[in-house]
Amino acid sequence: MKYCCIAALSAMLLSLLAGYIGLPVLKKLRAGQTINELGPQSHMAKQGLLTMGGVGVMFSGLVTGVAFSFKNTNDHGLLAVFCAVCGLAFGLIGFLDDYIKVVKKRSMGLSVKQKFAPQILFALLIAVFAYFDKNIGPKIALPFTDYELNLGVFYIPVMCFAIVAIDNSANILDGLDGLLSSNASLSLAAMAAYSFFKGTATNNGSLLNVGIFLLCMSAAAFAFLKLNTHPAKVILGDVGSLGLGGCIAGAAVVTKGVLLIPFCCVTMLISSLSDILQLIYMKRHKGRKLFRMAPFHHHLELGGMAETQIVSLYSILTFIGSAVALILFC
Amino acid sequence: MKYCCIAALSAMLLSLLAGYIGLPVLKKLRAGQTINELGPQSHMAKQGLLTMGGVGVMFSGLVTGVAFSFKNTNDHGLLAVFCAVCGLAFGLIGFLDDYIKVVKKRSMGLSVKQKFAPQILFALLIAVFAYFDKNIGPKIALPFTDYELNLGVFYIPVMCFAIVAIDNSANILDGLDGLLSSNASLSLAAMAAYSFFKGTATNNGSLLNVGIFLLCMSAAAFAFLKLNTHPAKVILGDVGSLGLGGCIAGAAVVTKGVLLIPFCCVTMLISSLSDILQLIYMKRHKGRKLFRMAPFHHHLELGGMAETQIVSLYSILTFIGSAVALILFC
Repeated sequence: MKYCCIAALSAMLLSLLAGYIGLPVLKKLRAGQTINELGPQSHMAKQGLLTMGGVGVMFSGLVTGVAFSFKNTNDHGLLAVFCAVCGLAFGLIGFLDDYIKVVKKRSMGLSVKQKFAPQILFALLIAVFAYFDKNIGPKIALPFTDYELNLGVFYIPVMCFAIVAIDNSANILDGLDGLLSSNASLSLAAMAAYSFFKGTATNNGSLLNVGIFLLCMSAAAFAFLKLNTHPAKVILGDVGSLGLGGCIAGAAVVTKGVLLIPFCCVTMLISSLSDILQLIYMKRHKGRKLFRMAPFHHHLELGGMAETQIVSLYSILTFIGSAVALILFC
Repeated sequence: MKYCCIAALSAMLLSLLAGYIGLPVLKKLRAGQTINELGPQSHMAKQGLLTMGGVGVMFSGLVTGVAFSFKNTNDHGLLAVFCAVCGLAFGLIGFLDDYIKVVKKRSMGLSVKQKFAPQILFALLIAVFAYFDKNIGPKIALPFTDYELNLGVFYIPVMCFAIVAIDNSANILDGLDGLLSSNASLSLAAMAAYSFFKGTATNNGSLLNVGIFLLCMSAAAFAFLKLNTHPAKVILGDVGSLGLGGCIAGAAVVTKGVLLIPFCCVTMLISSLSDILQLIYMKRHKGRKLFRMAPFHHHLELGGMAETQIVSLYSILTFIGSAVALILFC
């Protein structure tokens, strides 16, 4: 308990410090966000808002998370480091995307292909590595039972899809001030709780380390709310959203808890599903829209709900989803 | 773990439900808040904002908290019920205060004497009961050690002061949309963590029950953010602020963790200290002010910080304080 608190506190303080040091740097670099022309009209005011705040979050979360995750060493491998690598890999894709946006002042950053190709490649590498690793293996936890389902070779395409889906859903959720930081912080905390539970139940110190790592990531994201709450001074950017998504995906792999994700990350699911539904509906109904705007948080926003209220609602949903996940799988 | 999640989830859902049912009732009763004429000018817009939302929070938190707190029964007494009674007692004082405000449309509600006399009485009763109860006794936990300091008969005045101080600090912190709900939710969660830790370490099932109770209160307060986030639809009112403060005070008594409170509830401390400092400074310096306005969150607000940003900042401070408390006392 004491050790976990020290780890979380360090992550939080480092994240706050990174914010204070990083903000002037971003200002100097003129790391202004070129707002997506497809967003709600009101978001045009966000033109020039500083982006790439995720660099500070990822830096502080990864550094403290890895530093504190060698507490319970045994022969179960460096699962926490594996999670960190997942976060780092996807964070780097996001960093490239942000960098292009900032330097080239092109709202879209990388093209869709340029963004998805490395994501699929990384996801494939992670899934293949996990498949062959004796500490992870091609198994996933099922609800209501301790039995773990062996997917065999199907593990690779299934996890590959799951990883890319999680990561992009996090990216899509990152559309309002403080929305992803608060929700990802809660999701990561829930996955940390699952790791602690499973680590204790199976006497696997390496899973306890994963819990500590995820707790640090959660604390770093929470501290970022200092700068990210509406009206935001700086936003996560793709480096933050893809990076945090990568950590969650990594956690899903090493804890074998991929089926917890639709619950823990229910708001990410809502975001990407609403995007997909909107597209399908528009194709079928000659351009008529299902939602005022997709993803769903923009639908609520255009319906007159304040940004801050949507963030609260989504945080509560994530809390509820997380509780349901832990009830089903613990 | 599963049991705790079920308890927290129930509290949250009941709190949300209470909000949906309660909101139209409050509207019918015209339970409009008559805003304190001493607050910042901008708060005048809040005239007529619905108050007494704390009724729903206290109801759902207390009902689920008590219902789920008979899990680990042993001979250590009904400590969780004791906490619930503390919350209920102070909540009732707040309820009276709110009721007078709403019905008599008098911004100040009860007079200072009318408000403090029953508080001191209740605090005295709680302290005396705790002093004579063999499961609580006149002891308080110290940092860095398992040793508990026996205060002897001084326990009664010390705890009496502490209880009234905690309760009024919570009341003072309740000045911005979502500020107390979010901060009290975090403080209660931290005290829950302390109860779980201490209950496990000393094999005291009754303290585990206290943890479950506090978790339910925390979840109920968190769910209230749905309605209470800026721009708020309904505010806690004194019934909520004094009630939540009472639960925290009760937790401090039964866990013997009163010295954790200045850390876990650091933002409440900031609020009441800034109020006191302002008064002393004004008396000494012929009415010149130390802060633009006390308590300190109004000082920040008048300095140009958005309400939502102050809530984030304070939540982060409470998180940091809670981590420090758990590091010192676990």
